[in-house]
Amino acid sequence: MPKTIEKKSSSSTSKKWHKPSAKKSAKASTDSPKASAKVNAKRATTRNPKTTSSPAKKAYARKPKIEKKKQPKLRIFSLGGLNEIGKNITVFECENDIIVVDCGIGFPDDDMLGVDLVIPNFSYLEANVEKIRGVFITHGHEDHIGSLPYFLRSMNVPVYGTKLTLGILENKLIEHKLLQSAKLNTVSAGDTVSAGHFKVEFIRVNHSIADACALAITTPQGVVIHTGDFKLDLTPVESEPMDIARLAELGSNGVLMLLCESTNVERPGYTPSESKVGLSLDKIFSEAEDKRIIIATFASNVHRVQQIINSSAKHGRKVAVTGRSMINVVNAAVRLGYMNVPDGVLVDIDAIKKYPPEKTTIVTTGSQGEPMSALYRMAFSEHDRIALTDKDLVVLSSSAIPGNEPLVGKIVNELYRRGVNVYHDSSVEVHVSGHACQEELKLMHSLTKPKYFMPIHGEYRHLIQHKELAEKLGMPSQSIFVSDIGRVIEIDENGASFSPNPVPAGKVLIDGSGIGDVGNIVLRDRKNLAENGIIIAVATISADIGELVCGPEIISRGFVYVRENEELMNGAKEVATTALIEALSRGAHEWGDLKAILKGAISKYIFNKTKRKPLVLPIIMNM
Amino acid sequence: MPKTIEKKSSSSTSKKWHKPSAKKSAKASTDSPKASAKVNAKRATTRNPKTTSSPAKKAYARKPKIEKKKQPKLRIFSLGGLNEIGKNITVFECENDIIVVDCGIGFPDDDMLGVDLVIPNFSYLEANVEKIRGVFITHGHEDHIGSLPYFLRSMNVPVYGTKLTLGILENKLIEHKLLQSAKLNTVSAGDTVSAGHFKVEFIRVNHSIADACALAITTPQGVVIHTGDFKLDLTPVESEPMDIARLAELGSNGVLMLLCESTNVERPGYTPSESKVGLSLDKIFSEAEDKRIIIATFASNVHRVQQIINSSAKHGRKVAVTGRSMINVVNAAVRLGYMNVPDGVLVDIDAIKKYPPEKTTIVTTGSQGEPMSALYRMAFSEHDRIALTDKDLVVLSSSAIPGNEPLVGKIVNELYRRGVNVYHDSSVEVHVSGHACQEELKLMHSLTKPKYFMPIHGEYRHLIQHKELAEKLGMPSQSIFVSDIGRVIEIDENGASFSPNPVPAGKVLIDGSGIGDVGNIVLRDRKNLAENGIIIAVATISADIGELVCGPEIISRGFVYVRENEELMNGAKEVATTALIEALSRGAHEWGDLKAILKGAISKYIFNKTKRKPLVLPIIMNM
Repeated sequence: MPKTIEKKSSSSTSKKWHKPSAKKSAKASTDSPKASAKVNAKRATTRNPKTTSSPAKKAYARKPKIEKKKQPKLRIFSLGGLNEIGKNITVFECENDIIVVDCGIGFPDDDMLGVDLVIPNFSYLEANVEKIRGVFITHGHEDHIGSLPYFLRSMNVPVYGTKLTLGILENKLIEHKLLQSAKLNTVSAGDTVSAGHFKVEFIRVNHSIADACALAITTPQGVVIHTGDFKLDLTPVESEPMDIARLAELGSNGVLMLLCESTNVERPGYTPSESKVGLSLDKIFSEAEDKRIIIATFASNVHRVQQIINSSAKHGRKVAVTGRSMINVVNAAVRLGYMNVPDGVLVDIDAIKKYPPEKTTIVTTGSQGEPMSALYRMAFSEHDRIALTDKDLVVLSSSAIPGNEPLVGKIVNELYRRGVNVYHDSSVEVHVSGHACQEELKLMHSLTKPKYFMPIHGEYRHLIQHKELAEKLGMPSQSIFVSDIGRVIEIDENGASFSPNPVPAGKVLIDGSGIGDVGNIVLRDRKNLAENGIIIAVATISADIGELVCGPEIISRGFVYVRENEELMNGAKEVATTALIEALSRGAHEWGDLKAILKGAISKYIFNKTKRKPLVLPIIMNM
Repeated sequence: MPKTIEKKSSSSTSKKWHKPSAKKSAKASTDSPKASAKVNAKRATTRNPKTTSSPAKKAYARKPKIEKKKQPKLRIFSLGGLNEIGKNITVFECENDIIVVDCGIGFPDDDMLGVDLVIPNFSYLEANVEKIRGVFITHGHEDHIGSLPYFLRSMNVPVYGTKLTLGILENKLIEHKLLQSAKLNTVSAGDTVSAGHFKVEFIRVNHSIADACALAITTPQGVVIHTGDFKLDLTPVESEPMDIARLAELGSNGVLMLLCESTNVERPGYTPSESKVGLSLDKIFSEAEDKRIIIATFASNVHRVQQIINSSAKHGRKVAVTGRSMINVVNAAVRLGYMNVPDGVLVDIDAIKKYPPEKTTIVTTGSQGEPMSALYRMAFSEHDRIALTDKDLVVLSSSAIPGNEPLVGKIVNELYRRGVNVYHDSSVEVHVSGHACQEELKLMHSLTKPKYFMPIHGEYRHLIQHKELAEKLGMPSQSIFVSDIGRVIEIDENGASFSPNPVPAGKVLIDGSGIGDVGNIVLRDRKNLAENGIIIAVATISADIGELVCGPEIISRGFVYVRENEELMNGAKEVATTALIEALSRGAHEWGDLKAILKGAISKYIFNKTKRKPLVLPIIMNM
């Protein structure tokens, strides 16, 4: 445990980062961590007199400026997670200190053909690497930890996260051969980490993964709360509800700024409790006593898997797990004590055959219809251990991420073809979201009562609707910062405003082992190739004598089935030959000219014949 | 009006197709069309004694077989619309007569790169063109009429449809220069068309387009009902509810087989009435008095547009229409009397500027986020007539077709960026489906009481769930035919069964003006090109002397940005050169061998360096 972490249960460390202050509250001398945090929050508040409106504050604000010690400016910006879903990363900078919150990946848009992953542009951080005091991770989802292997390669700074978060991260770092060098520091909800000008407190929230936290970041300008991803679950599985009391306490003491996630801002009401899924599962297990049950869900949803184990144990079933990420997460969760598995319930997938099928449950990946996931392989009879029949019941304990419906539908069709019974969320309630709906977002705002607000984690429509929600709660429009990646908010004693100077930000595309070598030009070519294919015209000339030595040959890929379209392809060859000979005969020897002539002649011919515009690539070789 | 059509209102034509029968009911001599239809239905029923279970029938069935006149076998098969959404087309064949119901297009799957449309494989019909007595269209949606221009090119048979259906079809035929030659026959709900062994009666249903019909097809084996697409709307807009009475009458008389659509079989309950949308629109119009209102919806939803016009007129607004398909459909609907537009309400888009914005409504295409649709162009400031600001309210009166959510989201984000207020279905009820939910499907089954049932219009999961629904209503499993395109159901006096011999069926892909010249090989290449790009290695050799004359040159497209990856590309050139010289030096002159060597060397090098597998195309030219 690094020295900078204050444990909630420790009473000796609270003084470490607490500097004496004229305004110091009497409570500061009590060493209970809550009190300590409280003091700190108060201190932060006093540095930012606009935070509260008590008469005392106002009086203080009217004092001559010279009496107020000027605190260093706070800069806040995101390199991802604004105007996009995923790739979440937020940066806090104060003089010579930088802390980073989350470091996630994004998934490629439909037009990023062949791209595997999207990571943030780290160039600002790389240029200021000596300032970075640490990366603070809110929870273990890919869109919050997935870019860390790329980040840590060039910036090996300390990483802070809760036990399960780091357990999942370790699996990733092993794959990238970075585990040995990484500086991972485990914290628990309630702990505070000192990092230069910043103190970062982890606060328990509920989410669709265990051990998720919001962060209360004490800065010289005041306390900033970053919610991470959250929901309020008053009956969570194997954990406790969001720490409402602590958020309320921070709110009472004065919060400078709230950065709040916006994923479900379009949904009214409250997100149902995870426990509701348990009830549905129990009902399904009671009714399907003669079936093997296969349940697909998100690998990281430890509580969901826990509930599946609970229902299975209750109904005398053994549980096996399949799918690489599912195995990784379940192993980490069991090892780290996040799952409560009755003895003998969890068995290896290879051992499951020993039990009667109707006494077994299989937990699998593939709930998004991912090709080559375990569920996909089962549906298409490509799974080496599990063959599905009409004795099986498949439950999709998930909802399709928008755009994935056709993939999920493809699997469901195939399951029905095998006679498998399929339950999904539209028929039975086997999934709940992990994100706060409108009423929970309102609760977060009401608890924390921030002076400034920056909606995060959403496309523009989510951010702007979150702004509208805050306005309905009474927040002035000018206190809300709907930002964009790279845009910097600066906060000092004069208030908060956008800096005119953004930092570099954008999408770095990962294709295979290449980082950033696929850009707009490559993607544009891929799009054209995808839609129309390519026609290559290759000729060898002798430039000296201006003669066609060889060719032109016409070769195509992805254009038409050549054997059935010989006439078209022969026509193209004829057109190309005529154009080239004609050009050479009138003395055109310049490569660029010849290529343009060749390309133009073929493109025109092909368009007239087919109304298509394949990529035409002329290659002229000189002997 | 062709002679073969019996008008509901005509009393002189009912005898035309009614042949005397020993079992002829007394009612047959009344010339009212209902009675005539009834007689016919009864006659059909008697030919298929299993249809009803009245004592008389059973007695009849026990009579020696020789007394029963053997009726020709009925064959039913679909060339589209089974195990897929769209491309609906069903064929009925009886001896030398064929009729076709609907002739729609499908839309390409995600893996059909560059494909514009999908049409059915017509080869069976083309081989039997002389048998085809007509194409009967249930309604004017693309997935029911879109393939007709391709069909009619080679098979110019009569087409029957209601007025609006043919009005919309005419627009398509004009584009394809086929209107002059096409044999279009307008019918009304209630009419019956005689077509060889078949009599086709059009029956009014409700749907998201006006003038939709189910078909009752009297065949020598009995009456077959094809629902087309339908819902039950008891408060429809500017039309009447589905003709429940006629369906019930047919059911009482005995229905041999029901072909029923399955689109919404996964949704419980009833689909709400179209009128509900009118109430929501009225509310929006009342609240947005200071805004221009732009409403995007499906072009063909004439009733939706009618309701927009109604609300606009009520609130003193002028209405303009934008988007090519919207203009086409609205013009057809107004011209043919399907819209009731108060004088002066509908104005040209160019004239709309004359009115105060808050007194105007614009109806537009683009509700599915289609790139280059009118709404898309407005959102991205590319519309030449309409510029959106924060004085505008956009209503998406539609729901995203699964898979289209990201496209719709992109437009919504952009609208918010312009400060536009956006309403969509998740916030206000501005859309209802046009398809029957579970209770309406049950109603259709209960009304028609068919002997056999074939679920149509759905992916496998829809068809199988529709089968389960029918079983719950008491239908025996063996009476239900979950079929596939090309699979033939044969019905004779012994009952119904699948023929062992399917007819050719599949997807014919349309790319540009090419029909069917893009197949699996081309698509596989396009996918590879899309994901990895292409590397071309071209060399000229002198085969006689076994020498490399020129090259190899390495050219790539869609692989990496070459200027920033010179080292990689130079390495590839080196590897290629070495491999080629080495091969030539040991006497390998065979083209195939040399190409394989070149391809292998480059592929291996590239994969080692980048973990990618671009399409490597070796081209070797011989002097």
